[in-house]
Amino acid sequence: MTTELSPDALAGLLEEARQDHQDLAGRGLSLDLTRGKPASGQLDLSEALLSLPGSGRHTSADGADVRNYGGLQGLPELREIFAGVLQVPAAQLLAAGNSSLELMHDCLVHALLSVVPGAESRWVDQERIAFLCPVPGYDRHFALCERFGIDMIPVPMTPDGPDMEVVERLVAEDPAVKGIWCVPKYSNPNGVCYSDETVARLASMRAAASDFRIFWDNAYAAHHLTDEPVEIADLLAACAEAGNPDRAFVFGSTSKITAAGAGVAFFGSSPANLQWLLGNNAKRSIGPDKINQLRHVLFLRDADGVRAHMERQRALLKPKFEAVARILDAELGGTGLATWTSPKGGYFVTLEVPDGCAKEVVRRAAEAGIVLTPAGATHPYGDDPRDAAIRIAPTYPGLAELEQAIEGLAVCVRLVGYEQLAR
Amino acid sequence: MTTELSPDALAGLLEEARQDHQDLAGRGLSLDLTRGKPASGQLDLSEALLSLPGSGRHTSADGADVRNYGGLQGLPELREIFAGVLQVPAAQLLAAGNSSLELMHDCLVHALLSVVPGAESRWVDQERIAFLCPVPGYDRHFALCERFGIDMIPVPMTPDGPDMEVVERLVAEDPAVKGIWCVPKYSNPNGVCYSDETVARLASMRAAASDFRIFWDNAYAAHHLTDEPVEIADLLAACAEAGNPDRAFVFGSTSKITAAGAGVAFFGSSPANLQWLLGNNAKRSIGPDKINQLRHVLFLRDADGVRAHMERQRALLKPKFEAVARILDAELGGTGLATWTSPKGGYFVTLEVPDGCAKEVVRRAAEAGIVLTPAGATHPYGDDPRDAAIRIAPTYPGLAELEQAIEGLAVCVRLVGYEQLAR
Repeated sequence: MTTELSPDALAGLLEEARQDHQDLAGRGLSLDLTRGKPASGQLDLSEALLSLPGSGRHTSADGADVRNYGGLQGLPELREIFAGVLQVPAAQLLAAGNSSLELMHDCLVHALLSVVPGAESRWVDQERIAFLCPVPGYDRHFALCERFGIDMIPVPMTPDGPDMEVVERLVAEDPAVKGIWCVPKYSNPNGVCYSDETVARLASMRAAASDFRIFWDNAYAAHHLTDEPVEIADLLAACAEAGNPDRAFVFGSTSKITAAGAGVAFFGSSPANLQWLLGNNAKRSIGPDKINQLRHVLFLRDADGVRAHMERQRALLKPKFEAVARILDAELGGTGLATWTSPKGGYFVTLEVPDGCAKEVVRRAAEAGIVLTPAGATHPYGDDPRDAAIRIAPTYPGLAELEQAIEGLAVCVRLVGYEQLAR
Repeated sequence: MTTELSPDALAGLLEEARQDHQDLAGRGLSLDLTRGKPASGQLDLSEALLSLPGSGRHTSADGADVRNYGGLQGLPELREIFAGVLQVPAAQLLAAGNSSLELMHDCLVHALLSVVPGAESRWVDQERIAFLCPVPGYDRHFALCERFGIDMIPVPMTPDGPDMEVVERLVAEDPAVKGIWCVPKYSNPNGVCYSDETVARLASMRAAASDFRIFWDNAYAAHHLTDEPVEIADLLAACAEAGNPDRAFVFGSTSKITAAGAGVAFFGSSPANLQWLLGNNAKRSIGPDKINQLRHVLFLRDADGVRAHMERQRALLKPKFEAVARILDAELGGTGLATWTSPKGGYFVTLEVPDGCAKEVVRRAAEAGIVLTPAGATHPYGDDPRDAAIRIAPTYPGLAELEQAIEGLAVCVRLVGYEQLAR
């Protein structure tokens, strides 16, 4: 990094930042910006769930007693509600337990230990398996790959999604590349929404592996922050049209719609993939918690109900994201020390600091009682080669706490940035 | 099978049975005795769950917001309630989702794909893995082995549990034997309760495999049918005392206590095994449905609450098991064609018919509209070498339907039995 600042000006700015950081550390803060958790006010929006379905209401639309065993695919009426949101026909959608991460984990397990449609053998019997990991990305995706010994190949993100030149080349060349992790809308952590062209190319690109899968984690499908909800192209339909019907595994959940620990997760795919997962699930369970699914049906009612609910979520989240943008702009705008995303939805802001500074910013913030997601967590193996990306999760703290935390973070960016310039 | 009946007497009995079966088939019955499902009357006992925890109640004993992410081990206050029932200290108990079968599946998956404490390598990297399967046993245990390519070695059951001479020899000799399936109390399907000696020998026997595990599916821990609840010995404590602390994986659930599809499942084990499972679960999920766990705490309250609830369950189930015994005795007693179990708890009666007759009895019953669990399901690979065991699940049908079904079943046993004698 170079600067146009005079040595004296830089020394002054650095001294000021040091003083600010000392003051900050003296304030005894204890603030946490680590995880994308809903705030209790957001959870209060679903208070009615705590008393639903209510006495005597235990029958699903198809006449099943939701209290009993069975119904592996989940309640049809709940799948109808989320079919549009997740862009998966209800008949190809599975409503499961309380975590879409579980479904991703289990799809990997079943592909490792069973033969996924199109595969020549179980993945565990193959010498090497690799997944493409657009970076920055979601640390829990990367942790799953690491846990199962799946190689991770980072792919740069662009404003339209992963760099498709790189993706197409790697997927076409290497039969060990079995998958790619995608958060296609309001991506974790940088808010990118995949363009229609990106979706079309993902659906139609040539794959060396006959069992290549797109793990499409549509976690923020309904999680808009602006008046203009982003719509992405329908990957599942595009794959079918392109003659690759089994390529997409679609995931989603109500974790950040209703209750983070007690929502409903969804899996959607081609009929063949759905049957494969249902067949494997049938060995594992006698069915999901259908009472909780009925509870969600009664609470959300229909797709309009989801939209209205997400408007109420937005009313709570928008001021927080606005505060982050306002403070970063006021404190760091024009310094040349940082850039940051202005996401139109989702749960995160990505702050980019000068190369080599992210870890030190996180360390300095921790000294002042502000806990951030570890620098590097957005990259495979926790290794951000530029050491530049910091994920900010503004949803959980109250507005006043959030403002304190972002102000403190800005101090740390100035301190570390000017220290580097002065070196 | 031989008989002391004269040819004429036998011909008369056979003719009578044929006539009875013809009448039975003409009645157009549609009855299902296949699965161990609670009846709706049993589920009604937990009606209060449908409105719990209730508005404003979303905080656990340790102050966590049960609506949000986190709390991988499950609510401490729920674990306290079930610690005694499952004979696992609350600190070593994990409260999870709605299915203990899932936990068994996942323990196998993690042992296959990670290194279980005491193991030299992942199970998937070993040439052969085998489990001992006491027979008759639970078909879903066997299905898990089959799904993962784990060899199954049948072991005969005795009135005290599996034949320990056989178990000890196989476990001591063969390092490929990594586990044994046990339903130690009111066993599925024959109601056997493991004796203290059996438990002690399981805990202390020498194992060739350093990573040998007892899958202790205590599914019917609190599911008594008589005034004298059976107590079994504490396997986990016995394993620790014998110097094999990591040998036992204990499983249980409230599926047949509260709601079959929406209960809470438990895993209990040594600290090392618990940490192993928690570590693997941490990659898979951000925590279980803690709202449902709080719901169960508020409904069941404490161990006495569980006992009182199971008394109400017993009041509904006892007449059904009595009806099965009464009808089998009236219709088949003294014929020499069948024996059956009189379980003191659990969900099943095992009917033993003459060797080579079970499949035919099930087929004849189906002709008359009475669906039974497929003969052989109680054995690995669906193969009962004697073709003699039929599992009766009396809990789900109403009493009048159950009586019809057992009467019809007795007709089929007479028909098939006398046919065989007449051959």
